[in-house]
Amino acid sequence: MNSAAARIESVRSALSHTDIDALVITPGAELRYLTGSAAHPSERLTALVVPRQGAPVLIVPTLERPAAELLGLDSAGVALYDHGDGADAFGAVTALLRERLGRPAALVAVSERMWAAHWHGLTGAAPELRMALAETVLAPMRMVKSEDEVAELAAAAAAIDGVHRRMGEWLRPGRTEAQVARDIAAAIVESGHSEVSFVIVASGPNGASPHHAVSDRIVQAGEPVVVDIGGTLASGYGSDCTRTYSVGEPEPEFTALYRILRHAQQTGVAAVAPGTTAEAVDAATREVIETAGYGEYFTHRTGHGIGLDGHEPPYIVAGDTTVLAPGMTFSIEPGVYVPGRFGARIEDIVVCTETGVRRLNTLSTDLVIL
Amino acid sequence: MNSAAARIESVRSALSHTDIDALVITPGAELRYLTGSAAHPSERLTALVVPRQGAPVLIVPTLERPAAELLGLDSAGVALYDHGDGADAFGAVTALLRERLGRPAALVAVSERMWAAHWHGLTGAAPELRMALAETVLAPMRMVKSEDEVAELAAAAAAIDGVHRRMGEWLRPGRTEAQVARDIAAAIVESGHSEVSFVIVASGPNGASPHHAVSDRIVQAGEPVVVDIGGTLASGYGSDCTRTYSVGEPEPEFTALYRILRHAQQTGVAAVAPGTTAEAVDAATREVIETAGYGEYFTHRTGHGIGLDGHEPPYIVAGDTTVLAPGMTFSIEPGVYVPGRFGARIEDIVVCTETGVRRLNTLSTDLVIL
Repeated sequence: MNSAAARIESVRSALSHTDIDALVITPGAELRYLTGSAAHPSERLTALVVPRQGAPVLIVPTLERPAAELLGLDSAGVALYDHGDGADAFGAVTALLRERLGRPAALVAVSERMWAAHWHGLTGAAPELRMALAETVLAPMRMVKSEDEVAELAAAAAAIDGVHRRMGEWLRPGRTEAQVARDIAAAIVESGHSEVSFVIVASGPNGASPHHAVSDRIVQAGEPVVVDIGGTLASGYGSDCTRTYSVGEPEPEFTALYRILRHAQQTGVAAVAPGTTAEAVDAATREVIETAGYGEYFTHRTGHGIGLDGHEPPYIVAGDTTVLAPGMTFSIEPGVYVPGRFGARIEDIVVCTETGVRRLNTLSTDLVIL
Repeated sequence: MNSAAARIESVRSALSHTDIDALVITPGAELRYLTGSAAHPSERLTALVVPRQGAPVLIVPTLERPAAELLGLDSAGVALYDHGDGADAFGAVTALLRERLGRPAALVAVSERMWAAHWHGLTGAAPELRMALAETVLAPMRMVKSEDEVAELAAAAAAIDGVHRRMGEWLRPGRTEAQVARDIAAAIVESGHSEVSFVIVASGPNGASPHHAVSDRIVQAGEPVVVDIGGTLASGYGSDCTRTYSVGEPEPEFTALYRILRHAQQTGVAAVAPGTTAEAVDAATREVIETAGYGEYFTHRTGHGIGLDGHEPPYIVAGDTTVLAPGMTFSIEPGVYVPGRFGARIEDIVVCTETGVRRLNTLSTDLVIL
């Protein structure tokens, strides 16, 4: 992994080309990317403040200071500042910025997922302060993964592929979606993930709701079942892989639809190459389904970036004009959802390479009949 | 539980006494409180918009619409509006508000945990819009729990008490904190919680870091171990209970410190009564520890409210002048942390009653020697 020092230096270099006075980064993927901290968001303010001049500071609640010291950020030139319960942490941020900049900060850029309460606290402490999103600086850096980051995503993909390969142990007619999901969740942890991120088991008509989670519905023989699962490794990088199974012999209409979907997913994967845009990959995938007459049933984007966040740029959707570059990692996951009948989705994580694309999930996309 | 209709009606009534044009509530405890939705925050906007006049609307991503329909909010007079990937969801919110109000909205109040990206999107769609926090309207409602809500918190407390009672099965010299924590996590789920919220096992000197989670440190004979654990029930209400154990015979200095801490915790619980302030309960608790000469080692507030959020108002801390009222639920959790040596904390969830206080955790606070 890149060190915190190198990443923070890249941020400062990027800041010098903008009119942003400082980044203020609260817990989440952006903080983890820059410091290694896996802190959770809280009403108590934790924030990495990277001013355009002067040393960065990690501001933490006093009771988190021992954990923050273990990050070893002094070697990256980051000072630590702690505030006790009831102290004015937002005033401390604005005072720090005034001291570093030699004037009040005019524009700060914050984490995409900063809580509104913290945004409100910061602007309350400095009413003239203008706010922007740090992703304008961080997304271009975070989108292009290092070899180590790709290796982590590949390890996560291999682990979740292993869970899918065991699906026949759990997914059977007569069991409820929730029972199947509990077994899958246990297997996600056994496979080496440190936590379960999500488990979708959507049988029969439930498959027509793309974000259906689980229910007490009993899986019936002959039904398609959408299984979309993911976990997070200790490093913070995660997996996300969907397969649609048929529990017993499928209806011919489903088999035909699955064949179209599989062709669309393969077309989407094959469209990935450096220099192509994110939206062009979406268009290539969508065209297959539209040409087959099922366009109205493909109700979502083709995919999303993945890294320390489960969903992050680039988004594989019309309007995202990001030019793909080697090291970008994202899902290719077209789906078709026929209300009241069934749904199907096939999802792999891929990485854009120097010459084209590499699938990190290496499972077959043939229809598996359990 | 109160119905969504009654709670939304209370919000509208409260709005009429303010200059807030609308509440915009994204996924989290506030949305669950008002609608029952357990949706997770996402880059795709989900928001309940409650204007000061005209019908409320739940705005959801198209792929979440089937799940949103299951909430049955039409009976509460809430319309559904869905937006596809790539559509302008923020423009839809501002257009909706213009239609409802007959003019552009001037001031909206948003969820405490709304993502900065959504705040930025809303103000980008309506640059003149001023933003405030919805908690000024919602916290007074949410702080006072109904009987049903107290029953849920009591059920969660009973479940976590049961886990603490089994601690001797897992917490033994020679095992690592992480091994002990894994067993506790499994027991939290077995005890009836639907998920594990947090597991802190802080042995010996690690106990001096109040938010230490777990490590591969091996628990030694004769050491104090701080165990702070919680889970969430299917209803969304959770548990949070800390006990400090001695693994074998403790040192006399620890025993003396524990006695002071226990006295402080009991004093804090006894100070709870309707009409008292949150900060007065903190002061009463803190005074016991300060008088004994350990004030510098009690480095955090005495407690926090608990409900659909694990930490919510009131906060039991200097500066929180909330007047306690029957139905308010919060933790009383003083701690002492001696750097390099050990720490100790005792935490119960209590509810303010008509006549005083009721502990929802009913475990003894005697020092348990395992």
